[in-house]
Amino acid sequence: MEQRHLSLLIFSGEYDKALAAFILANSAREMEMSVTMFFAFWGLTMLRDPEKMSLENKTLYEKMFSVMTPTGASELPLSNMNMAGLGKGMLVEMMQEGEVPALVDFVKGACHKGVKFKACQLSMEIMGLKPEELLPEVEVVDAKNYLEDAMQANIQLFI
Amino acid sequence: MEQRHLSLLIFSGEYDKALAAFILANSAREMEMSVTMFFAFWGLTMLRDPEKMSLENKTLYEKMFSVMTPTGASELPLSNMNMAGLGKGMLVEMMQEGEVPALVDFVKGACHKGVKFKACQLSMEIMGLKPEELLPEVEVVDAKNYLEDAMQANIQLFI
Amino acid sequence: MEQRHLSLLIFSGEYDKALAAFILANSAREMEMSVTMFFAFWGLTMLRDPEKMSLENKTLYEKMFSVMTPTGASELPLSNMNMAGLGKGMLVEMMQEGEVPALVDFVKGACHKGVKFKACQLSMEIMGLKPEELLPEVEVVDAKNYLEDAMQANIQLFI
Repeated sequence: MEQRHLSLLIFSGEYDKALAAFILANSAREMEMSVTMFFAFWGLTMLRDPEKMSLENKTLYEKMFSVMTPTGASELPLSNMNMAGLGKGMLVEMMQEGEVPALVDFVKGACHKGVKFKACQLSMEIMGLKPEELLPEVEVVDAKNYLEDAMQANIQLFI
Repeated sequence: MEQRHLSLLIFSGEYDKALAAFILANSAREMEMSVTMFFAFWGLTMLRDPEKMSLENKTLYEKMFSVMTPTGASELPLSNMNMAGLGKGMLVEMMQEGEVPALVDFVKGACHKGVKFKACQLSMEIMGLKPEELLPEVEVVDAKNYLEDAMQANIQLFI
Repeated sequence: MEQRHLSLLIFSGEYDKALAAFILANSAREMEMSVTMFFAFWGLTMLRDPEKMSLENKTLYEKMFSVMTPTGASELPLSNMNMAGLGKGMLVEMMQEGEVPALVDFVKGACHKGVKFKACQLSMEIMGLKPEELLPEVEVVDAKNYLEDAMQANIQLFI
């Protein structure tokens, strides 16, 4: 049987967009598609391991960046907070009432289901993130690695 | 002749992004491409039928959400309002002077031209939207239905 | 050898998204992929030639738009400024410390490396931009031209 592949480039670091990405990734795995999620820029914030933050060997800017940006999937903001007048807590509560899993469950589920997690090397350099600060499942690669993988995909999305 | 297909995932609920999506959809139809627009999260707000809003059988959060989010394509905000210092009214007026059709005309045109409208079931559950609140042309489907359709497409975009 | 092609639709006019787009475009060229960047709406602001701004033959709204939106790639705002609490200057400084090229270098590099620049005709009409206000490398085309090109691409992204 022909392999079917989904490639997601996660640029945004927002809760609702991340949720959409993980819903797609998990649905694709249930359809036996292979899935690669390539995290760049703000998307990297959702891969940070909260217990592994390091301020050593960083410039002042990198330190400020580390402290001021979210650490991990449960701290992400909402893209349309102002538009809808809704806070993230409200959406999370709505999700609980509707029995929709929370984002952290989607991340765990995606790992468990075999979604490949990749982090953009150049973005990490720009943001001063070190590989050991990310979740252990993450592989650090460059943009060419992303492009090679995306070219093999049936669907490529920039989220 | 080989079928050519365009798949648009409309996540954003912003006027200018919606406009871009409908310009692409209508252009594709004029080129005899088939087009599916799959609306998720904030994108769903532009499919709401203003005359069919319902507050029955909703939780408090769902009711607040119904009232606070836009109802239908003419109420959408602009993604870059703050950046450009422009209000939506100004862009709409510029469009009128330039004789560019307004968004509601694009929605109607897309329906008339045979663009398929699909709404994400899970997003509707999260947001507490009911199928009868949407425009009658909309079919409610799940993420797997989106993926199957998108895999057949020559172009897939996340907007 | 089979031609490999990358199609980027640049809708956003934000510094970090533009940076991501140019990193992808330049990486693709280094892999000998052909690359088309199609600029629409706010994306057009990064193609404006700062020395060629014209206020002649414009309506009042078009004039306000010309003056209030960024002129050229070095003036773009950051998409997540509020989220991260970082200003553009800070990210630019971090990039300099990390020896990552600035956006203007990416634009020049992309031109030099043979990336094709196209501007959306309808967006230009809406925004009141004239072809002579853009960088000379830019070709003005319509949405159908974009779709025809994107259909030939191995990867299409909406940024």
